[in-house]
Amino acid sequence: MKRQGVLLVVSGPSGVGKGTIISEVMRRHPDVRRSISCTTRVPRPGEVDKRDYFFIGADEFAHLRDSGRLLEWAVVHQDLFYGTPREPVEEALAEGCDIILEIDYQGARSVRGLLGDRATLVFIAPPQWDALAERLEGRSTEDKEATRKRLASAVHELAHVELFEYLIVNDDLAAATDGLEAILMAERTQVNRLDWRPFVDGLLREAGQ
Amino acid sequence: MKRQGVLLVVSGPSGVGKGTIISEVMRRHPDVRRSISCTTRVPRPGEVDKRDYFFIGADEFAHLRDSGRLLEWAVVHQDLFYGTPREPVEEALAEGCDIILEIDYQGARSVRGLLGDRATLVFIAPPQWDALAERLEGRSTEDKEATRKRLASAVHELAHVELFEYLIVNDDLAAATDGLEAILMAERTQVNRLDWRPFVDGLLREAGQ
Repeated sequence: MKRQGVLLVVSGPSGVGKGTIISEVMRRHPDVRRSISCTTRVPRPGEVDKRDYFFIGADEFAHLRDSGRLLEWAVVHQDLFYGTPREPVEEALAEGCDIILEIDYQGARSVRGLLGDRATLVFIAPPQWDALAERLEGRSTEDKEATRKRLASAVHELAHVELFEYLIVNDDLAAATDGLEAILMAERTQVNRLDWRPFVDGLLREAGQ
Repeated sequence: MKRQGVLLVVSGPSGVGKGTIISEVMRRHPDVRRSISCTTRVPRPGEVDKRDYFFIGADEFAHLRDSGRLLEWAVVHQDLFYGTPREPVEEALAEGCDIILEIDYQGARSVRGLLGDRATLVFIAPPQWDALAERLEGRSTEDKEATRKRLASAVHELAHVELFEYLIVNDDLAAATDGLEAILMAERTQVNRLDWRPFVDGLLREAGQ
């Protein structure tokens, strides 16, 4: 039976383990793809255009944004823009490909506004605040100011759980991964995503109706 | 985190394998219970009141039905009544127990009308009509007339797929079982079923907010 792809929008505080959970779900389901963002920042060594990001100029970014062709966008470090181009996501969903999008709650809200029920919003929460704080403080690559900012945004993220359809508490990585996988599997069988009419009509024809 | 139980309402044509799929999901999740129906028929040998059915009289059945205390009901063989008492289901859901209810599409529609989003409606369809017909014709305990009736109701069931949230095609028993299990697991993490506010407030308090 043909179906629309599932768009899993996964949010949650920095350090909660979103990336690890998503990678493991994608390892189990190699047909699931990550959405590719566009950005105005320059490629880092090893990054490939159209694989890691769509690397574009500020003018092109502004044009995409102002013509409604981004599902969501954000500005980082005051002058670097990141966004999710709408067209590749729409195309993938129409072909029945499942997409995972890892963004913050503001991005999730924007996607919900533009795609409605076609997006599945999943929030991943830490079991305790201390576990999250320790994890962020343990990221040796960052200075204290960066950690403080991440903890402040974690508070904002947590205050917006009600935007989401699903909430997974990552107190056990394997269980949280199983949880995200179950959401993917369940959403694949949602009636409003399936092209069920030709299938049921076929059954009824076979039955002589 | 406290949560409301999941009420899985499972429908589909007779012979499609609903019972087998449900039993296997319950074997994997011994905490999930079947809803116990009430009926006006007499107990068969070995059946136990309040375990297999609530065996009640016609007057009591009529009273439950007419006072809105049945989630759904049906009449079988013209004078035997079967129904799902609402109170035990509501109590179980409030305690966070998950319940499976195996009923026809008319029952599913009635439950949806009374419980709205609190019920999760799953339809199980056969991959081909012939497979279903052969399976029903192979039930040696039944006469041809009973088989004909079951096939006729299968047509009615299939014509009502759009009432349901999820559609599983049982072309592979293990995959169909995994599908129903995924729906159960996913629904357990639905935000509107979780008592998430005290949990999130606790995290925010720990964060000093």
